Amino acid sequence: MTSPQPRLYLQEVAPRDGFQSEAAFIPTEDKVALIDALSDCGFAKIEVTSFTSPRAIPALRDAEAVMQQIRRVPGVVYTVLVPNVRGAERALSCAVDEVNLVMSVSETHNQSNLRMTREQSLAQLSEVIKTVQASPVAINVSLSTVFGCPMEGDIDEDEVLRLADRFCALGVERMTLCDTTGMAYPTQVRQLCERVRQAFPALELTLHFHNTRGMALPNALAAIEAGIDRFDASLGGLGGCPYAPGATGNACTEDLVHMLDLMGFDTGIDLPALLQAARRLPALVGHEVPGQVLKAGRRLDLHARPGAQACAG
Amino acid sequence: MTSPQPRLYLQEVAPRDGFQSEAAFIPTEDKVALIDALSDCGFAKIEVTSFTSPRAIPALRDAEAVMQQIRRVPGVVYTVLVPNVRGAERALSCAVDEVNLVMSVSETHNQSNLRMTREQSLAQLSEVIKTVQASPVAINVSLSTVFGCPMEGDIDEDEVLRLADRFCALGVERMTLCDTTGMAYPTQVRQLCERVRQAFPALELTLHFHNTRGMALPNALAAIEAGIDRFDASLGGLGGCPYAPGATGNACTEDLVHMLDLMGFDTGIDLPALLQAARRLPALVGHEVPGQVLKAGRRLDLHARPGAQACAG
Repeated sequence: MTSPQPRLYLQEVAPRDGFQSEAAFIPTEDKVALIDALSDCGFAKIEVTSFTSPRAIPALRDAEAVMQQIRRVPGVVYTVLVPNVRGAERALSCAVDEVNLVMSVSETHNQSNLRMTREQSLAQLSEVIKTVQASPVAINVSLSTVFGCPMEGDIDEDEVLRLADRFCALGVERMTLCDTTGMAYPTQVRQLCERVRQAFPALELTLHFHNTRGMALPNALAAIEAGIDRFDASLGGLGGCPYAPGATGNACTEDLVHMLDLMGFDTGIDLPALLQAARRLPALVGHEVPGQVLKAGRRLDLHARPGAQACAG
Repeated sequence: MTSPQPRLYLQEVAPRDGFQSEAAFIPTEDKVALIDALSDCGFAKIEVTSFTSPRAIPALRDAEAVMQQIRRVPGVVYTVLVPNVRGAERALSCAVDEVNLVMSVSETHNQSNLRMTREQSLAQLSEVIKTVQASPVAINVSLSTVFGCPMEGDIDEDEVLRLADRFCALGVERMTLCDTTGMAYPTQVRQLCERVRQAFPALELTLHFHNTRGMALPNALAAIEAGIDRFDASLGGLGGCPYAPGATGNACTEDLVHMLDLMGFDTGIDLPALLQAARRLPALVGHEVPGQVLKAGRRLDLHARPGAQACAG
């Protein structure tokens, strides 16, 4: 492959999307140390934590402490999830660079996940947007279940565009299309990304894939073919989903970067530093993580001639 | 995606490439029952067993019994791995449809895996080819480490073409390009497949990927873009490699078929029947298998509204 490949922007979500579903509380200083290590890896953005109710997500009850203690590397956008005005006020008091708001394109998923209708979510997030727009902090809106809902099934593309339009009308300039439970497939991804880019050419779009059915990497490539250059991914592939017990979670950052590097894309990521950070994860969370490159090594991490056993085929 | 997609041909390798590396011996009747189930799934080819020395691969020491006891479904090519003339004679006595010969493009890997130089392998396989050419049985040659050697690193594309040319000169009409240890990446796959197809337009080409570094599915899509229509895959992703302990093994059949189905390709495979066969695997081999769709369900296997826990993002 000799043709130059475009610059891509990687955004690490493990500290929020991964840690939030861990059963054991990860000590604040360990979270901070991991985020500080990630800050040196070349990410465009790091999702640091979530300013939700400590009762709702006890794993992230130290949101303020984490946000205040991390080292802020210039050029990295430090973003946090915010569900409501109270969360936005907490986030703003910590001088975050961006707040990330979430609602679902699926009515059923929104009600089951956020305990309100989509219209109620829109109203609540409008208030959050107004609050944040009075500050210099940027706003990103993440739309869940864009490529399918585990309860409703297929999601009408027009619904995605309609919802994106509502947020754009409120002044939102950054949006993430989330494949929340790994239902996206490459031809679908390419088609929807092309439609959204065409409809909202000024919108800064991120794609957020899950590897639940093994398609995170091909989906990322399909999105790139549609002109997408910004991806969420999670160190070690951390972050599952209760709808798919036993399945892998988020797109794994190091597996994605490893592939994109080989294909000649400039991801901005220091892969050896990233793998060093990923190696800490199993001890930190107390279990194995789904990432493959972590186990197999990079493509050209060569081996000595083995002993008896060998591969055929 | 409305454009019609080409017909693809799927070839199941778990009974050979998967079972050969299992520590516990799988009873002959269980092997036969699984292969019989696979025969009803719509595969173009099934690699049934290996006629190697029972001392070298004790897991497949029942090769004759398995080959003789399986139900042969018309239209399915039943192939077996054969390392030498003795193996070929054993295979021919069982009325196989095809023999599959293996050698490595990497000199180091060939020596370490097959205990001989590539020239010695070529000489030995030439004898096998002569033996089989006197029968109506077809011949396939599998080239290992085509996309990289875990000991040598990158493999010169010209070496692959040179070796393919040697076998074509011997009258071989079917060839498998194997990514033996999961070193292939999409741009490389596309380029090499295009070169090989151009150089040997009459050769029936199969691509054999491993998911060691998470790239089996994107590599398959890259091969399809280069005009490849025939793929090996292994039920449940069974079949690891000693060079990558802990990593996943072969491309997982049901994950590959699930994705290709969604993209509109005609794989000929009955996915529900395939998943039913895959569900037997963990009990059969005594451990979990890497396949994702087996754990997560198909994309539109919908869920009831869950209880407390939920996904965000």
